[in-house]
Amino acid sequence: MDHLMREVRAFAEARDWQQFHTPKNLAMALAGEVGELLAEFQWLTPEQSAQVMSDLEAGVRVKAEIGDVMIYLTRLADVLGIDLTDAALTKLNEVAVRYPVDEARGSAAKR
Amino acid sequence: MDHLMREVRAFAEARDWQQFHTPKNLAMALAGEVGELLAEFQWLTPEQSAQVMSDLEAGVRVKAEIGDVMIYLTRLADVLGIDLTDAALTKLNEVAVRYPVDEARGSAAKR
Amino acid sequence: MDHLMREVRAFAEARDWQQFHTPKNLAMALAGEVGELLAEFQWLTPEQSAQVMSDLEAGVRVKAEIGDVMIYLTRLADVLGIDLTDAALTKLNEVAVRYPVDEARGSAAKR
Amino acid sequence: MDHLMREVRAFAEARDWQQFHTPKNLAMALAGEVGELLAEFQWLTPEQSAQVMSDLEAGVRVKAEIGDVMIYLTRLADVLGIDLTDAALTKLNEVAVRYPVDEARGSAAKR
Repeated sequence: MDHLMREVRAFAEARDWQQFHTPKNLAMALAGEVGELLAEFQWLTPEQSAQVMSDLEAGVRVKAEIGDVMIYLTRLADVLGIDLTDAALTKLNEVAVRYPVDEARGSAAKR
Repeated sequence: MDHLMREVRAFAEARDWQQFHTPKNLAMALAGEVGELLAEFQWLTPEQSAQVMSDLEAGVRVKAEIGDVMIYLTRLADVLGIDLTDAALTKLNEVAVRYPVDEARGSAAKR
Repeated sequence: MDHLMREVRAFAEARDWQQFHTPKNLAMALAGEVGELLAEFQWLTPEQSAQVMSDLEAGVRVKAEIGDVMIYLTRLADVLGIDLTDAALTKLNEVAVRYPVDEARGSAAKR
Repeated sequence: MDHLMREVRAFAEARDWQQFHTPKNLAMALAGEVGELLAEFQWLTPEQSAQVMSDLEAGVRVKAEIGDVMIYLTRLADVLGIDLTDAALTKLNEVAVRYPVDEARGSAAKR
């Protein structure tokens, strides 16, 4: 993770792109890439989506889109001074309290 | 990263949520969380967005949203059998070829 | 449509919100609302999603989210000087050429 | 609006695409198109975004993306049996109550 963050930062700095990399702009870029990821799944049934990596061409595209999303998420977190893993683990602990195992089992109901 | 992936997976399995976690559904959940992240920045100027972590309340919300996005991205990658760091580094290398330092410096033009 | 556009414009002007309503900000707000719409469908099977309006509570939420999306899309088009219906019909004609009936029937393949 | 809805419906039916057009899938397609719209604005300053239609090439792209978004929103509303204009006006009335003119003037604070 730290290695990736430094690589993405070096990539941006070498191109003098820090000026474009405000949190606002990076959040938009992240959303744009997630939109491309959605497009890979939009017409698939859930079952087909579970097999998408068996399709060589689709699998390559999905991995590339996941890569794009991760690049922008990493860059956004870097610019905000947020540790991605820490943010995710902290949130996971909060969600675990809100959805206790006994009550949440097998249910997708929102709380 | 591996630790986070295992934690998220254990969280889902303990609640028997694997049935909901198709790539299609997880991509939608990821996009929903990115939408909440966008909402934090939508009315801010780029300059204000760069200071968002100095605002205690907004900073907490942004970190929580980043955490949510990372949780679903991690889970999606796990379900697809994709290594997030590898996907990002692979894509970064491709982008580096498409945007050579000399030509891309200081320009946001798309290629 | 014209009536709606004028109502949304009057709503914004009465609150002196034109200052926030740049195309960039409105596109983000639109995306944020679409994220909330996605959240209504993310854990549903396609079949369940087709029945969502039969569920009184979910139906009310979905209609409200569709309303939010339409409000921001209308406002964005107004600010850009774009006629929504014309933009959609123009694009539909282009897509009709790209996906001729004979070749596209029953296939979701992208072109 | 009714004309557009019927045109989009006829377009889909002629290609036998109703099978793909569940609300879940259409919401994803809508989000994918909104992602492409975001990409047009992500590196622009708010001021540049306000001038985007003066740029001939960007203006054409933005109108096309707005058209795509409107096509999927219209189709989604049709499939759900929701009147887009009614949904927007109903929601606008609710928001007007939540954000009274006197209190909301000039402020982007969320309620």
